[in-house]
Order: sequence, then C-alpha cells, then structure tokens
Amino acid sequence: MGVTREVSVADYLAERLRQHGVAHLFGVPGDSNLELLDRMLRGGQQRWIGSANELSAGCAADAYARRRGLAAVVTTSGVGELSCLTAIAGAYAEQVPVVQITGAPPTGSGAALLRHTLADGDPGHFARAYREVTAATEVLTHASAASQIDHALATAVATSRPVYLSVPADVASAPVDAHRLATPVWTEPVDAPALAAFANAARALLRAKDGQVTVIAGHGVERRGATRELRALVEAGPLPFVTLVSSKGAIDEDHPCFAGVYCGDVGVKSARRAVDQAAVLITVGTLMTDTVAGAFTAREDPAHTIDVRGTTAVVAGEVFEGVPMRAALAALTGLAGEYATLPAAGLPASAMLGRRAEDEHGPVTDALTQISLWESLEEWLPASSTLLTEVGTSFWGAVSITFPPNTAFVGQPVWSSPGYTLPATLGAGLAEPGRRPVLVIGDGAAQTSAPELGTIASSGLTPVVIVVNNAGRTGARVQRSPEALYHDVTPWNWSGLVRSVAPNAHTYRATSRRELRQALAAAGAAPEKLVFIEAVLPSADAPPMLKRLASNS
Amino acid sequence: MGVTREVSVADYLAERLRQHGVAHLFGVPGDSNLELLDRMLRGGQQRWIGSANELSAGCAADAYARRRGLAAVVTTSGVGELSCLTAIAGAYAEQVPVVQITGAPPTGSGAALLRHTLADGDPGHFARAYREVTAATEVLTHASAASQIDHALATAVATSRPVYLSVPADVASAPVDAHRLATPVWTEPVDAPALAAFANAARALLRAKDGQVTVIAGHGVERRGATRELRALVEAGPLPFVTLVSSKGAIDEDHPCFAGVYCGDVGVKSARRAVDQAAVLITVGTLMTDTVAGAFTAREDPAHTIDVRGTTAVVAGEVFEGVPMRAALAALTGLAGEYATLPAAGLPASAMLGRRAEDEHGPVTDALTQISLWESLEEWLPASSTLLTEVGTSFWGAVSITFPPNTAFVGQPVWSSPGYTLPATLGAGLAEPGRRPVLVIGDGAAQTSAPELGTIASSGLTPVVIVVNNAGRTGARVQRSPEALYHDVTPWNWSGLVRSVAPNAHTYRATSRRELRQALAAAGAAPEKLVFIEAVLPSADAPPMLKRLASNS
Repeated sequence: MGVTREVSVADYLAERLRQHGVAHLFGVPGDSNLELLDRMLRGGQQRWIGSANELSAGCAADAYARRRGLAAVVTTSGVGELSCLTAIAGAYAEQVPVVQITGAPPTGSGAALLRHTLADGDPGHFARAYREVTAATEVLTHASAASQIDHALATAVATSRPVYLSVPADVASAPVDAHRLATPVWTEPVDAPALAAFANAARALLRAKDGQVTVIAGHGVERRGATRELRALVEAGPLPFVTLVSSKGAIDEDHPCFAGVYCGDVGVKSARRAVDQAAVLITVGTLMTDTVAGAFTAREDPAHTIDVRGTTAVVAGEVFEGVPMRAALAALTGLAGEYATLPAAGLPASAMLGRRAEDEHGPVTDALTQISLWESLEEWLPASSTLLTEVGTSFWGAVSITFPPNTAFVGQPVWSSPGYTLPATLGAGLAEPGRRPVLVIGDGAAQTSAPELGTIASSGLTPVVIVVNNAGRTGARVQRSPEALYHDVTPWNWSGLVRSVAPNAHTYRATSRRELRQALAAAGAAPEKLVFIEAVLPSADAPPMLKRLASNS
Repeated sequence: MGVTREVSVADYLAERLRQHGVAHLFGVPGDSNLELLDRMLRGGQQRWIGSANELSAGCAADAYARRRGLAAVVTTSGVGELSCLTAIAGAYAEQVPVVQITGAPPTGSGAALLRHTLADGDPGHFARAYREVTAATEVLTHASAASQIDHALATAVATSRPVYLSVPADVASAPVDAHRLATPVWTEPVDAPALAAFANAARALLRAKDGQVTVIAGHGVERRGATRELRALVEAGPLPFVTLVSSKGAIDEDHPCFAGVYCGDVGVKSARRAVDQAAVLITVGTLMTDTVAGAFTAREDPAHTIDVRGTTAVVAGEVFEGVPMRAALAALTGLAGEYATLPAAGLPASAMLGRRAEDEHGPVTDALTQISLWESLEEWLPASSTLLTEVGTSFWGAVSITFPPNTAFVGQPVWSSPGYTLPATLGAGLAEPGRRPVLVIGDGAAQTSAPELGTIASSGLTPVVIVVNNAGRTGARVQRSPEALYHDVTPWNWSGLVRSVAPNAHTYRATSRRELRQALAAAGAAPEKLVFIEAVLPSADAPPMLKRLASNS
C-alpha cells in the first residue's frame, strides 16, 4: 500500500486474462503484435497456441470460451484482425465472450502509408468493422489503457459477447499501476427490489394460470454458468424441461424430468407435447433463431412465459432489469410450492427421447448411412466427452441421439459458419484436458479449416475426428438444387492428408456400419492418440431432422 | 427497339461481368446464394470455381482481376461474406477491381432472427463492415437493381477498387430491362481543357528544370492497362525508367532504358542513381507505402515531380482533375522534344540490375540458401510465366533477380496478407491460360491457405509450386525475436499433403542447390503437370534486400 508498483500494459492484460481462467493465447504472430506477444508470454500466465490462420484461431478461442468462461485471440493489425472477423461475429451471434486482441502500429502512425493498411491514411477502418460485431471496441491509449482493458473485459463477461482491444506497439510496453489488479473487473449486480418484484410477478402468473409448468433451457444457461441453478429449479418442482438444439446436454439427458430436445414441429414429439401443454413456460437463456425454432414453428407465447435472460427477466411481457439469470432461477426455485404437481405419466421414457418413432428404419443392414452412423455413435460415445458437430448433417444427426452423462456439446446453430468445429476442437480440447473431444464434420466444412488438424496434433491433443465424406456440401444439397455441381468439393485422400500434418495419428476409413464400429472401438482403445476416421456416406443422405427442417423452411 | 426484353437480375449481372471479361466466378456456395448461383451459371457466361473457403476465393479473384481487369467472388451472407473481407480489403489497398457479390436473405426479412446473422435484428452489420473496404456498397432493391449494378461496376473500373453487391434472394430472380446492357457501364472521361493545361504545365516544368528526366512506374500502370503508353513515353525520350517492387516486370527488364527496381536506400544503386540524379521525376501509378518506399527512404520531391495517377495528374503540386493515366502519358510522349538527351553512359548494363554487387557471394557451394534459391530461379524461370511470390522472404528474393521477357509478377507488398499467393495462383492461372504460374511461398504462409492446392489441381491448372520450408515465418523472424517459438509452425510432410489433395501432381524435395535445379528442370519438362517442390532452407536465412529493409525499419 502506498508503494507504486508498475507493470506493462501487456503484463496487465495477461494477468487480467489469467484471473478469468485464460491459460492459453490463440492467434497468429505478425509485424504489429510481436512486442505484445513477447511481453505477454514472458510472464507465463498463458501458453501460446499458434494457428495456421486467424479465422481458425478465432474459432478455437470461441470454443475455449464456451467451456472455460473467457478466451483470447491475438492477431496483427489489418490483415490479421480482419481474417478473424467471422469468428468474432460468430461469438457475438452465439453469445460467447472472446477477447480479440490486435497488435497495432505505434500511436500516432495513423496517417502513414503502412503495409497491412488500406494505404489511404485512415487507420480507423478495422476498429470500425469490429464495432459491428463486438460489445466493446477499445483502441488502447497511454492515458487509460488499464481502465480500457478492464472495461472491455467487464463488458465481455457481463454481456457474454466478444470485445475488441487494439494495442499499439508503444502502448504494449507502457507502464500502468498494478494495484488495479486487486479489484475484479466485474461483479454481477443484483437489483434486490427488482428481483423481489420479479418473484412476485412470477408467483402471480403461476397462480393465475395454474397448470403444468415447462422449462425450456437455451444456450444461455451454460454461457452464464447457471446449470446448477437450473437443475435446482427443475428438481424443486419437479418440472419437465426441454433443451433446444443449441443447448442439448446442458443437463444430463437421463434426468427423469427431461422431455427431449425441443425444435418446434421438427423435433421429437415428447418435447413438443411438454411445451404445447404447458400453462406457463419458463424460458432460460433461449435465442429462438430460425433453425433453433424449427423453422419458426416453436411456440411463441409471451403472455404465458417467464423469460429469464442474462441480466434481465420478463414475466408475461413485464421487464425486470437487474435480475441476473442465477438470481432469477433461485427466486423461481423458491416458488416451488406454486407449481402444479407434475403428472408422472407426462414424462416419457428417456429411451424414446432421441428420435421420432418414424425415423427408425426396419431391418438393420451393414450400410453406412446417416441413420446407422448416428446409431453407432450413440452406442459408442463415452461419457464425459466433448462432442463437436458441424452445422449441416453432423449437427442435425447429433441432436437426434441421446447423449451419455456429462456430455459437453459444441455446435454453432445460430451463426453456422462452415469449418468452425475443426478449430473449435483445438479450443475445447485445451480448455478441458479431462474431456476427450469427438468431432463429427462433413468433408466440405473440413476442407475449410483442415490445416488446423496439424495444430491439434502438435498441441498434444488426442481427439477422435470423424470426417463424413459425402463428396461435398450435403447440408446445402438438402436446401436447393441437390444435383448442382457447386455443392461438390475437390476429392481428397483424407487419411493421407491427416498423416501428412499429424504423423502420429491413427487413421481409419469406414465404408460400412461394421467398419465404422471397428474404427470407433479402436479409437476408444487408444485414448492417447489422435484418431481420424473417414466415414464414407452417400452424397444425398441426410438426417431426418434436417430434412424436416429444410421442408419446413 | 420498343419491345421490352426482360432478364433476371442474376442474368443481368452475369452479362455485365462477361462484358468486362469475367469468365469465371470464384466463391463458396451457401444458403443465401444458391438461387443467385443457379441463375447466374445457367447462362454459361461464367464457369464456377468453388474454393475451400471464402478468403481463398477472394484472393483468387484478386489475382484474376489483376491479370484480366475485373473479377467476381460470390459468397453467402454473414458467415461467407465476412470471411472474404480480408481479401477485399487487400484489393482496396492494392487497387484491384474485384466485385464482391453476396447472396442475402429475401428483402424484408431483415429483423428476423435468421441463422448466419448476429441474431440482433439488425441486418446492416455486414454491408457496413464492407463499406470500410470498398469503393461502392450496394444492397440491391427491386426498384433499382440494374442501375445499382451498373454503378458498382463503373466504380470498380473507374477507381480500380473493389465494390460490394448484396443480392437478396428475391431480387436475384426479379426482372430488369435488358436494353440497358447495350450501353457500357463506364467510359473513361477526359477533360480536354484540363489535359491541355496539364501538358502546358508539364512542358513548363521540363523547361525550367532542364535536366535528366526519370520515370518511376508504379503498380497503377498495369492496373490501368497503360503499359503500352508508358513504353511509348520511355522510348520517345528515351528516358531511363525504374519500377517499384510493386510493379516489377511491368515493362520487360531487358529494355535498354530500364535502370532497375527502385526501393530507396534498400534497392539497387543504378535505380537509386537514376532517381536521385533526375531534374524531373515522372511518377506513374505509384503508391509509396513503407516497404515499397524502402522503409520511407525513397525520394519525395513534389516540386520536381510530374505525378500521373488514375484519373488525375499533378505537376509540381498543381492538380489537374479529369486527366486519366493513358491520356496523360500520351500528352507527355508528345513532349518528347522537351526531354534532355539521355546520356548513353547513364544506362547500366542490364546484367547488373538484379542485385547489388555486395549481395553476390564468393565461392559457389551446393548449399540451398536464399541466394542460391533465387540464382537458380533466375536461371530457370521461363519467359511468359506468371511469377507469384508471397510477401516475406519469397517476395524480397524475387525483386532481387532479373526477370525474363514477358514475366507477369503478382505479389502483395502493400496489404501483405499471409497466404495470399497460393489462391492467387488459382486466379492468375485461370485468368491467363497461356501463362504457367510459378509460385514461391514460405511454409508458414502456405499453411494458411493450403487447401486451395486441391482447387488448383481440380481446376486443371499445372503451375509450379515451390514451398520454401524454413520451419516457420522467417519474414517475421527478421523483424523481431528470431528465436521466439511463435514464429514456428507445425511441421508438415508437404509432399504427402500435396499428393493427398492433388493426386496427379509431381512432387520433389530439394535440400541442395543441385536438387533444386534438377526439380526445376523436371518441372520445365512437365508443363502438363502440377509440379510441387519443397525447398528446405535454413530458418534464419533471408534475402539481403529484406534484411536491409528490416534494419532500416
């Protein structure tokens, strides 16, 4: 106390990130971030994970943040930061707190005709582009770098959205007061009167409607770290709950209150019934985009809804600010006496949850199809895995199966950026060393970000990577002009490619159900290896749920 | 005449592009562009070239536009278009007319929570991001789609910059009047009085200064299609001329008036002398960014300069609007009598142009180094090739050698986006089937965009691809912290990778000068094959010119 202790801006940033659990820096080095990187990495708070390109680094950071609460990606100015924009926009759309850190030319060099700029004397283009896709955009200055960093990180955590920090090279090495580090950047503010008013309004609605209450859990539950509070609410009723495709697995699917994945007309009937029959819906962290809402066939009924959001709650249209999700869930749990008793017959057997009866095929053959692929994965998937599935056939296959306990599920149904899940496997694997990632991705999407297979291997991760080779973009074929040549992609020798960038990987090629099961068994028996499986499927085959979605769109 | 003939907006756009020589569409298909693509491709004006990702498609389009005058890249909204932003920003920085075409959701769906959006009800984010990096940004409407297309294409051609067209799915199929197609979108406007005033001012300056006149040719010469006019000017003097690193090869380097590549303190002395000794400089289409200007060591002397730009010319600071480059060059050629007679001794022997005497090493060994790599390439490079070199060691090696006649040179010294030249090889090869592309790229950059090797092969191209494997990003090592681990990249088995995505390629690995020469000879003997050469070099070795540049920065 009283003694001024100074650290560099780079050190300050590294320490702030460490305080939020960030132990890795994703990114690509470049002219303007070398000084920043030298300083940030010297302290040892983070390990450097260099990707083949910035888009992949951003996707890796996104998945890391989903599993760990915050992530950072470091790029160089102009060419580097813009290449990461799609990933950061995805983090915005999917509500993921990623800190985009760009090393920039020194303060005051703005109008100079520098490489990596548009050479038009305006250095503001890139930050303005980032303003479109972030919750805070800060170009650090000597005078206020520390408070700018704190503001950006607080915004990321408070909004669960990405933020942008541009760090001029001279600011990276500038001194700031280290004492600030003792104060957290953010603590969740709870407005006690608002919370009480919310609880009263919720009680009134429950009494007025007096019928079955169903909980719809959206992806915000995991983003806000409110899984435990949600489970407490469900069990206090007990209340039937459904998840969305964007939040599948947020609570274990063998839970007796689980009524299935709700996707409007497109999903399973048990979930539809639980939602349709409810007198009151409690929606928690939901974002009902077109596909998540089953091509907009989900029930929208504000008058019968208690909507719990990130920092706000809404009862039958009445908005209560300053009521964060965990506090709101605790208040609703306190209303357990108000819930109508759950009819035991209302809960379906969990064995029926995964898919509709009509999706089951008759005689089992050895053909490798979307049905047999996902049946095989459902049988094999070990508990406590992280399952990453690319939007397209893989994601819509995955949401049709029942997950084993403690499955973490990573997908991108809102932003749906092709190739996201391959670098996301890097991020998810590093975020949670105790979980083995299992990636399922189509060949078209995998070609988008294939170089990251090398980064995954060289980072020491040992995921199971399944590329569904159906000769192109079947997710798009389902939508329009299935015979169009533009759906095709260049045929690759996938095993050869994987061995070229990940020499210690085990590789398999499966053209039948039996071969796939054998490959999966081998993968399970080799947890210390990166295991790659090419699953060869017909190009026109798609999961039933995706077909229903396309025909509803 | 009088009969209304209607075509769809998609057809109209395809035909307008054809009128400007665009015979290929680069891009990636996605939800929102399928209808647009179906319609555009049905007419047969363009062939579809599907890339592994949008950034690569944009880079391919950039190179195509450099060699052909215009190019188009088609993406889907949100996820697709943003992934292409770095490439379009590069086209802006380097003054290349690329039409970015994005298929968008139907008109009026703006506020809906659609996938591939930020799900915040604001559909304007992406066009606003593009506004930062394009010369025109048009979201097509039913009422004015044709005039919007014409305006955008006219802007692209007039400014030699990229433009952005967002095409809602319903607008793609809307009818427009086909008669507009008979009128060109743009004709170069010449302001005759301004041109005369420019010529008078130029004559006055030449008389006042009365000494050697040197021409500096920048990349604008090729962008504006003014190579022939420049040559006429140089030969009318005759006048010594230099090129910049950004315009090397714009006129054949065996031309008797060529004084070398000018890069301030960093380049060859003959070019420096020609510029420093000039009483008047004629600069044509130059853009003197930091590296192009030899870390800002180039002569800046407006009082002694006639500056010929795209549509403007400047004499000793006096600006003449409405004087396009070709007209200005013709006017200057008409002043031939005003130029001081060129001293024959002022022109160096072309054999001396390539590099500085001190760059030559003593005894020739079999070691493969930056020096021996570029000596070998200089000996081998066939005339009429397109040489593409990645900024970093490859580009700075290339600018140090003398090119054979009719060499097209593609690099990105202003924007300097890692990985650009690999997909640029796709675009350059398709733009000019008569030229074989020769690509030289470092392993770090090549990993960025490696999937495009498959697209190059499946498109039927047969370039020579040389990956300089120096275990990481040596271009950055030269700048700072050469031992830092972040410069390293994951080691790949390059030949295995190439064979996996381009099965008919011939692959070689060279670890000595002799092996490289043998591989190059084999490449020359197999013009019908994609030939891949991995050249293994020491990680700390860099071309002398790059080292000088770094030590000047």
